[in-house]
Amino acid sequence: MINVTIYNEFIHEVTDETCKAIYPEGIHTVIKNFLEKDGEIGKIRCAVLSDHKETLSQEVLNDTDVLIWWGHMKHGEVDDAAVAHVTQRVQDGMGFVVLHSGHASKPFKALMGTNTEKLRWRDAGEKVRIWNIAKNHPICKGLDETFVIPYDETYGEPFAIPEPDKLIFISWFQGGEVFRSGACWLRGEGKVFYFQSGHETFPVYHQKEVQLVITNAVKWACPVQRICNVDRGVGNDPPFEQGNL
Amino acid sequence: MINVTIYNEFIHEVTDETCKAIYPEGIHTVIKNFLEKDGEIGKIRCAVLSDHKETLSQEVLNDTDVLIWWGHMKHGEVDDAAVAHVTQRVQDGMGFVVLHSGHASKPFKALMGTNTEKLRWRDAGEKVRIWNIAKNHPICKGLDETFVIPYDETYGEPFAIPEPDKLIFISWFQGGEVFRSGACWLRGEGKVFYFQSGHETFPVYHQKEVQLVITNAVKWACPVQRICNVDRGVGNDPPFEQGNL
Amino acid sequence: MINVTIYNEFIHEVTDETCKAIYPEGIHTVIKNFLEKDGEIGKIRCAVLSDHKETLSQEVLNDTDVLIWWGHMKHGEVDDAAVAHVTQRVQDGMGFVVLHSGHASKPFKALMGTNTEKLRWRDAGEKVRIWNIAKNHPICKGLDETFVIPYDETYGEPFAIPEPDKLIFISWFQGGEVFRSGACWLRGEGKVFYFQSGHETFPVYHQKEVQLVITNAVKWACPVQRICNVDRGVGNDPPFEQGNL
Amino acid sequence: MINVTIYNEFIHEVTDETCKAIYPEGIHTVIKNFLEKDGEIGKIRCAVLSDHKETLSQEVLNDTDVLIWWGHMKHGEVDDAAVAHVTQRVQDGMGFVVLHSGHASKPFKALMGTNTEKLRWRDAGEKVRIWNIAKNHPICKGLDETFVIPYDETYGEPFAIPEPDKLIFISWFQGGEVFRSGACWLRGEGKVFYFQSGHETFPVYHQKEVQLVITNAVKWACPVQRICNVDRGVGNDPPFEQGNL
Repeated sequence: MINVTIYNEFIHEVTDETCKAIYPEGIHTVIKNFLEKDGEIGKIRCAVLSDHKETLSQEVLNDTDVLIWWGHMKHGEVDDAAVAHVTQRVQDGMGFVVLHSGHASKPFKALMGTNTEKLRWRDAGEKVRIWNIAKNHPICKGLDETFVIPYDETYGEPFAIPEPDKLIFISWFQGGEVFRSGACWLRGEGKVFYFQSGHETFPVYHQKEVQLVITNAVKWACPVQRICNVDRGVGNDPPFEQGNL
Repeated sequence: MINVTIYNEFIHEVTDETCKAIYPEGIHTVIKNFLEKDGEIGKIRCAVLSDHKETLSQEVLNDTDVLIWWGHMKHGEVDDAAVAHVTQRVQDGMGFVVLHSGHASKPFKALMGTNTEKLRWRDAGEKVRIWNIAKNHPICKGLDETFVIPYDETYGEPFAIPEPDKLIFISWFQGGEVFRSGACWLRGEGKVFYFQSGHETFPVYHQKEVQLVITNAVKWACPVQRICNVDRGVGNDPPFEQGNL
Repeated sequence: MINVTIYNEFIHEVTDETCKAIYPEGIHTVIKNFLEKDGEIGKIRCAVLSDHKETLSQEVLNDTDVLIWWGHMKHGEVDDAAVAHVTQRVQDGMGFVVLHSGHASKPFKALMGTNTEKLRWRDAGEKVRIWNIAKNHPICKGLDETFVIPYDETYGEPFAIPEPDKLIFISWFQGGEVFRSGACWLRGEGKVFYFQSGHETFPVYHQKEVQLVITNAVKWACPVQRICNVDRGVGNDPPFEQGNL
Repeated sequence: MINVTIYNEFIHEVTDETCKAIYPEGIHTVIKNFLEKDGEIGKIRCAVLSDHKETLSQEVLNDTDVLIWWGHMKHGEVDDAAVAHVTQRVQDGMGFVVLHSGHASKPFKALMGTNTEKLRWRDAGEKVRIWNIAKNHPICKGLDETFVIPYDETYGEPFAIPEPDKLIFISWFQGGEVFRSGACWLRGEGKVFYFQSGHETFPVYHQKEVQLVITNAVKWACPVQRICNVDRGVGNDPPFEQGNL
């Protein structure tokens, strides 16, 4: 059973009427609701900006297999200690699924080592067509070769990410942009997946293909085994092959 | 012409007699001396821990095409503002060549997004055999398939780096370890090369193959053109393809 | 349940006394025996050179999720039509696990697009130490960071493979070589894993770590879903987004 | 100086009036004309289907640093011996620049190891917008972040290529497709670049950005040094480190 923690900033859903109408209980609750229908998912916890110092504590993270992250307006207010715990847990094997504007979040930036906030964008409610270029990847299980999100925020290349270990989706946007909208990286022992879809003013997380992608990503990102991060490098170990010296 | 800045901590050469005997004017001076024999190299500046706040200023970095980094004991004393300037200049295209114990330096860690200080090590003066697995890479120009460093510090896998964009060297150590000892990554527009050889108590940087690797790496890491890091994402750009909306 | 087919040339076990003593019923039988203890493995078929035109028929391959390949002396006698079926099935999603001297087999060469027979080798019964550099990869589940094969054939870099999508193991050999001894590639929708260990005159496939690697590799290489290789490109499809034209 | 050989099928320019009007002396001649303006380019030879057994001889290929390939209708008529020479020369370091419908050519398929003829296509003269996602790559020197080809054939994902070592361009097509339209691989010691633009019935190779891409690609693909493909694997070499045995 996979233990999941969902971080959602949970600001737009309170302050923006359009967003509130679509996600009255928050984006995290919609994600929680579809995840808990899946038989492989265990405990699901939620964290929001206002309580995240407690709800993303070291203890919670130590019991989390996969962390999902949605944030937008208040990246700067996320506690640096919590960020450090998150990035360290990823090194130790925790999966990390970053959604939409989470591309500019502190932990994603730190894990990528690049200015991941750099991309083109336009909040125009354009049509998006997502192309699946990795049919036999676990994240694509059950997906067709292409699907449409009728309205979403436009993101465009160049997106300042390091070369993905595996590129999964490329999106076409009505206004002329393309975007590497699904991509995987390993950081330490932890699997990281970025998925672009999901602006707060459109019902993207209610769409079944998007729910399938996120559910699959959680299963893919779950560590294959509990990993104990051994502190190597004491420097006084004997050689493995002593006869050689 | 390629402008190079060499950062060397310059502590061991003052405090350790063995090191002082091998590098009386510092590791940076040996590197400077062999680099300036090459016709493509322009201005070479040096920076050491004691003056690095000035010698790694924003102004210097803005005029640097490739930065070389050697540090070991005092990574923690490197100024965070200088580190931020370095990592930002790499995003904008500056090349970054990291040597030996620089694997645990602040800028390399920040650019990799992993706990790059994690590796096996043993300071035993073992024989190292380096295997060149990328014969047609610019960094390998003029190298044979294998060369030996008679005595160097032992590093061993697992080395907590992200998957290299290109793996160049794998080293064999007498005591039983292997190590990905030459590896390339892109971060933003900047090329990063890590090269493992070069413990301060052995004359590694006096060896001609090592000098060739570093010289080649500088040429490879130099940006292909002056890159202006445009601040994208104003969000009110019109669509490229307006007819579609 | 995963259907596995094991191809083994089965010549050495008949003609070479040392090999016969270690693998009296053939390498394929040893592999079959340990695989069938695993609860996720379904039907296991075996194919040998003398019957491979029937036992690697299109029909058999269509019912095979993962094909394991061991060959050495008689790569040239493998039927080109069978090879074409194998490489096509890999494109459609069949997993392909290539062992030891299978690096020079026709299907592996065709899938890699390089002269994969090129590597250093020496049949000297040297000690091999395998380093696991991908602790959280499914192929490494249950493995320690390093394990030893007391005697095996020596392979050495440079190994003329394309850059692996994921490097899993690097081996240290007593005589001074290193080797990328476990590596993954995707070809079409099919996962390919090459594993270097397993010379016919040493009891390598009786060793528990080796058995674990192969069992894990079979599970990893199994397609995530039945993939139907759609014949794209008829060229008269209407545009997806007709309004744009 | 870089010696270039350009293979062009040269059928459409004879049989199709539209193509003949745009490329009266053949696509190869247009490519030759813009390449020879560059000071780093040396001898330029041309080969067409009707003479390719001579003009792509082993002798010519041995004197070629970079081979450019355009073919479409008659891939099947290219001589298998010539194909074998081409793919072998790539292993030894010759650069290989494959244009447009060359994705389905024999040498590209053989080097990729996948069914590279598989992609979506539609000959509808749609607008293409190419996005440059590798600003600091030699192939992008002098290019802006995006440029338009007013009319070209539409290609669409999924494109059955192996994961590129480096993805350079992603194209947006008016009708809803996206395509990895510029991608790099290493095969043996040879660099391979595929570039999608260039249907025979549109003046794509007369466009300055396209000419820049191809010129840059030739320089990038040129081997860094003359590579002698050593035949390794005699198997009776002594160990490098004899004291260990």
